[in-house]
Amino acid sequence: MKTITSRDNAQYKDLLKLAGSSQARRKSGRTLLDGVHLCQSYLQLRGLPEQCIVSESALRKPEVMEIVGQLESRRAHVLGLPDALYNAVSQVEHGVGVMFLIDTPERSVTAPVTVSAVLLDNLQDPGNVGSILRSAAAAGITQVYCSAGTAFCWSPKVLRAAMGAHFVLDIFENVDLAALVSNAQVATLATSGYATSELYDVDLRQPVAWLFGHEGQGVAGDLLSMATHQVVIPHLGQIESLNVAACAAVCFFEQLRQTR
Amino acid sequence: MKTITSRDNAQYKDLLKLAGSSQARRKSGRTLLDGVHLCQSYLQLRGLPEQCIVSESALRKPEVMEIVGQLESRRAHVLGLPDALYNAVSQVEHGVGVMFLIDTPERSVTAPVTVSAVLLDNLQDPGNVGSILRSAAAAGITQVYCSAGTAFCWSPKVLRAAMGAHFVLDIFENVDLAALVSNAQVATLATSGYATSELYDVDLRQPVAWLFGHEGQGVAGDLLSMATHQVVIPHLGQIESLNVAACAAVCFFEQLRQTR
Repeated sequence: MKTITSRDNAQYKDLLKLAGSSQARRKSGRTLLDGVHLCQSYLQLRGLPEQCIVSESALRKPEVMEIVGQLESRRAHVLGLPDALYNAVSQVEHGVGVMFLIDTPERSVTAPVTVSAVLLDNLQDPGNVGSILRSAAAAGITQVYCSAGTAFCWSPKVLRAAMGAHFVLDIFENVDLAALVSNAQVATLATSGYATSELYDVDLRQPVAWLFGHEGQGVAGDLLSMATHQVVIPHLGQIESLNVAACAAVCFFEQLRQTR
Repeated sequence: MKTITSRDNAQYKDLLKLAGSSQARRKSGRTLLDGVHLCQSYLQLRGLPEQCIVSESALRKPEVMEIVGQLESRRAHVLGLPDALYNAVSQVEHGVGVMFLIDTPERSVTAPVTVSAVLLDNLQDPGNVGSILRSAAAAGITQVYCSAGTAFCWSPKVLRAAMGAHFVLDIFENVDLAALVSNAQVATLATSGYATSELYDVDLRQPVAWLFGHEGQGVAGDLLSMATHQVVIPHLGQIESLNVAACAAVCFFEQLRQTR
C-alpha cells in the first residue's frame, strides 16, 4: 500500500479535485465510489478498481480490511491517507473510510432498443435518478438511456442512491431520445397525468421502453407525442401525482407482475 | 400587509429561528411551508395559515399576488419582507418568495387501526418519508403512524418531498408501533427481503396496515415478528433490494390494483 501524507502531493490534489467537481469527473471520465457497499458491489460485479483509497482508521475495520486484503492479493493499487486528508476527499459524513476510484464507462448508442429499457428525459434530482436505476435493476431491466439534461449518472449522489445498480446496467448518457424512440423496436410507454389508458390495462408481457420526464414538467411534449402509449397510474386520493421514482417503481413492478 | 425591515425585529428573529432549527419547530408546534405549490395546497385543503410571509420581489409574481389577494380579502396575516431578509428565512434556493407559517397538528393515538394505514419504523431520510406520504395519499391511504426515530414529518424537507400530501393525511408521530400493531383490527404487512410470500400472492382487497422500516436495517425484529404477514417484492435482477419509498409505492399501488 502506498501512503500520502502531504496535502501538496500532486496525486492527492487530483483526487480532491475529482471529489469536489462534477466537471472534473466528467472531463476525466473517472468517479469515486464511496463506502463499503458500493466498493463490494463493484468488486463483485465489475472487478478491480483503478485505485482503492482508505483512511488510516478504516484499516482497523474488518469489512475494510477484507476489501483491502482482496485488492492487495490481486496487486491492485491501494492508497492510504491520514484521516484528515481522507475526510477532505470523502463526500459522505461519518463514512466508513473506503473509496474506489473507477473509470466511468462511456457508451454510445449504436443499435435500436430491442429489450426493456428506461429512458430519462431531463430528470433533475440525483436521488430520483439513483432510485430509478436501482428499481430498474431489481426488476431485471438492463438498459438506461438519459437525455443531455438528466443528472449525470456517475455523480456521487446518483451512485449512492442506486446502491450498486450501475454495475449491472448499461447506461447511455447524452442520448438523443427522440431518435431513440423513433427507431425503437419495442413499444415506448410514457407516463402522463393526462393519459386516458390506465397502466393496469396495458399488456406489458412484451419488452417495453419506459419514458419518464422532468420532476415538474413531465416528459417533453414532442417526445410524449412520439410514444406508442401514454399511460396513467390511477389514483384514489386527492393527491394527483407521484414522485417520478415512485411512479417508475410502480411501472417496472407491474411489468414484472404481468410477466411472472 | 405588515412589513418588517429590521433584522432586529423580535418577530423576524423568531421566524429566523423557526426556519433554522428543527428543535424550535418541534418545541413551538409550528412550521414553514415554502413555495407556491405547498401554500396553494394548504389554502385549498386546510384553510388559512397563521401567517403568510412574502418577499418584496415576489409581490410582482401573479401566482403570489393571487395567494396574497385571497388572504388579505379573508383578513389573514400577511407579512412582507425585503428580499435579503426573506432569503435568510427561506431554505429553498431560487424559491419563489412565499411561505406560510402554520401550526403543526399533533395527534395522539386513541383508537386501534381499522382502515388502511402506513406505519414507519425508524425511517431516516426526509426525502423517503415525504415520498411515502405522497404515494400513500395518491393511493387513497389516509393514516400514517411514525415511530419516535422516524424523520419529523413537518420538517421542510419532508414537506417539500410530500408536495401537499400532509394536508389530506392524518399523521401520528412518536407512536408506540408495537402497541399499535398488537391492537390493530386490520392485517399488518411488513416487507422484508427474507420473507417467503410474494406481494402479488397476498389478498389485498381488505384494508391493511403497511409496515416499513429503517433504510439500512429494515423493520426491527420484534415488530417484524408481530406482523400478520411478511411479504417480499419479487426481483428479477441481481440487485436485491429497492429503495424503501419505491418499495412502498409498489405495495400501495398493488393494493389499489387489487381493489379497483
